[in-house]
Amino acid sequence: MERFQKTRIEAFSDGVFAIIITLLVLEINVPEIDMHNSANQLTQALIHLFPKFLSWVISFLMIAVIWVNHHRILESVKLIDRKFFWLNINLLLWTSFIPFPTALLGDYADNKMAASFFGIVLSFTAIAFVLLRLHLVRNPALRHEAVSEISAKRALKRSVVFGPLLYWLGASMAWIIPVLAWCIYLLIPFFFIFPKLKSTHE
Amino acid sequence: MERFQKTRIEAFSDGVFAIIITLLVLEINVPEIDMHNSANQLTQALIHLFPKFLSWVISFLMIAVIWVNHHRILESVKLIDRKFFWLNINLLLWTSFIPFPTALLGDYADNKMAASFFGIVLSFTAIAFVLLRLHLVRNPALRHEAVSEISAKRALKRSVVFGPLLYWLGASMAWIIPVLAWCIYLLIPFFFIFPKLKSTHE
Amino acid sequence: MERFQKTRIEAFSDGVFAIIITLLVLEINVPEIDMHNSANQLTQALIHLFPKFLSWVISFLMIAVIWVNHHRILESVKLIDRKFFWLNINLLLWTSFIPFPTALLGDYADNKMAASFFGIVLSFTAIAFVLLRLHLVRNPALRHEAVSEISAKRALKRSVVFGPLLYWLGASMAWIIPVLAWCIYLLIPFFFIFPKLKSTHE
Amino acid sequence: MERFQKTRIEAFSDGVFAIIITLLVLEINVPEIDMHNSANQLTQALIHLFPKFLSWVISFLMIAVIWVNHHRILESVKLIDRKFFWLNINLLLWTSFIPFPTALLGDYADNKMAASFFGIVLSFTAIAFVLLRLHLVRNPALRHEAVSEISAKRALKRSVVFGPLLYWLGASMAWIIPVLAWCIYLLIPFFFIFPKLKSTHE
Repeated sequence: MERFQKTRIEAFSDGVFAIIITLLVLEINVPEIDMHNSANQLTQALIHLFPKFLSWVISFLMIAVIWVNHHRILESVKLIDRKFFWLNINLLLWTSFIPFPTALLGDYADNKMAASFFGIVLSFTAIAFVLLRLHLVRNPALRHEAVSEISAKRALKRSVVFGPLLYWLGASMAWIIPVLAWCIYLLIPFFFIFPKLKSTHE
Repeated sequence: MERFQKTRIEAFSDGVFAIIITLLVLEINVPEIDMHNSANQLTQALIHLFPKFLSWVISFLMIAVIWVNHHRILESVKLIDRKFFWLNINLLLWTSFIPFPTALLGDYADNKMAASFFGIVLSFTAIAFVLLRLHLVRNPALRHEAVSEISAKRALKRSVVFGPLLYWLGASMAWIIPVLAWCIYLLIPFFFIFPKLKSTHE
Repeated sequence: MERFQKTRIEAFSDGVFAIIITLLVLEINVPEIDMHNSANQLTQALIHLFPKFLSWVISFLMIAVIWVNHHRILESVKLIDRKFFWLNINLLLWTSFIPFPTALLGDYADNKMAASFFGIVLSFTAIAFVLLRLHLVRNPALRHEAVSEISAKRALKRSVVFGPLLYWLGASMAWIIPVLAWCIYLLIPFFFIFPKLKSTHE
Repeated sequence: MERFQKTRIEAFSDGVFAIIITLLVLEINVPEIDMHNSANQLTQALIHLFPKFLSWVISFLMIAVIWVNHHRILESVKLIDRKFFWLNINLLLWTSFIPFPTALLGDYADNKMAASFFGIVLSFTAIAFVLLRLHLVRNPALRHEAVSEISAKRALKRSVVFGPLLYWLGASMAWIIPVLAWCIYLLIPFFFIFPKLKSTHE
């Protein structure tokens, strides 16, 4: 039975996350203005780019959250089998797609489809986490001894609730008011960064 | 006789693979539509991008397969000589070219040349693997003791059959019906991800 | 209480810095000229790109300085808690934004807003360092034993003076004469690279 | 006296080299043709891209050669001081600029300025190596004990002859016939990859 080296998969995944989080900014293009040295015109152009900046910040923080989640999963893993490897590639696939919906959201800030599409793509990264956690629940041999079945199942349950469900909520709200979707997308990473908010509601 | 550190070459190659797999998405540009907030128009535009998305997924999975193959070769290697180093650079060269034929395939989905070109470039990555394996068969001193000549030769033979030959099949089919080439390109990584399909046919 | 592995955060941050410093060059586009083989026209076009080259060099050196500063902070750190992790993400966020103001500065070399915007963004990277150092002053448990409270406080004080204040000076000067801002931005990394200049003035 | 960790500088430099070598391909844009599914037109367009492909291969191999040279220098180094660090940043600066002259050379294949500019930029990477080697000759304390002064000086001398001088030869030839410069640029990495050619002429 084939086994993969945990360290190389960790390094490869970290490399991919570091590159995605940095590539995002390439989707923000320098604005074009008529009068080259007009500070007023450039200020106006930069203000119009606000949705691009905001969608960039949201995605940046979301990828940071993905990195932390990935970090936690790998901490609980002892062995990596073929299936875990390809489920991890599935996570990297959807994560590395994020620059596209981010640029779309920034360019079409008030378009319901753009706001919904963003949430749907992000929900696939969340489902990828659910599948990884499900695989760990079903295969105790892959887990560190310190990780009990109860805690693995609890982590799985939480990855469902605070994962795809939240993104689908955002993607649905987009069809009512796009701004509502933006708020949900922005709240998700902050919910995660300041865990006191989360624990109060649990 | 010059020797290279295996760890640094591994790290350098992993870095290159991680970057290529992530850069691919930059070739998918945000579509332009007339009515900025029309969800219908944007949905139509996204549906038209389907070939771009599909060519991106195919290349993403192929680079993941290349990573796994590279991982396996380096596991069987003990020492790295000058020739192995440059044969490895040859592999990285063709792999890092993949974003171009991927973008070409996505933009010209029904063009026979684009579909064929993709297969030809991918076949060069496969030939690079054949050359690396051939070098290991000829130089037992580079292999780990546990790797017998028989298994090195078997790995070489398999890298020919499941490598360039499959891509050339796709590149040839492209001149009959481009869609057929797409199917073959899509099947190659899945053939690899679900090895049961492969072993049944061996 | 959650702890993060210092090595993985170091590797992730280094990866992000290495990518940003390399991406910068992508913002310099090949100029277009009428007569394809006219050496004169191309020379003229390259001379016109001078502000692009200069803004690229300034940002390249600034990111190198950020790398050195980050290196020094992590050398004094023993443990990484949740807050340090997110303050580090804050630093990476602003650093990875640098390619945008760099391209803006290069494209609008004589625009007061562009010259000011550059300094403001860079000041946020400097504030991120101040926040990291402040966190270390307040939490002795995170520091190595060899790092005394006095030296931690001195490092904090210096990160304020040689950090945001210098960038704000540049950003303010931009509104008088943009060229003055350019000079300050160029001097900051040189001030750092040749520390004798700095120590003479302390 | 400040010392830098060799491993982190090695990792940072390797990261930068891996990114540059991979970014190069982004400068090759998908060609535009009138008839979307005409294999003939696309074949013609790809043939016209030949200078882009060739300049990409040349730069790819040159960066691989830079990686090998960097690898050898760091192997002979024991300690890294502040000056060595900034001379290394100088090397990374010029190396990370390579995508621009590469794109220029590919776009203006028959322009004397483009062919000359390429050689001049590459000569700066070679000068950066000369400066690093000079610093090691002058500071024996930074070298491993096994590296004698004679071998350090010989390495310095070789880095002058097979470095800037060859690139300046190419940059000068460009003003006579651009094709001649292309040949020299192509020969430099091959000279290095097949060292028997080099040793015969020494």
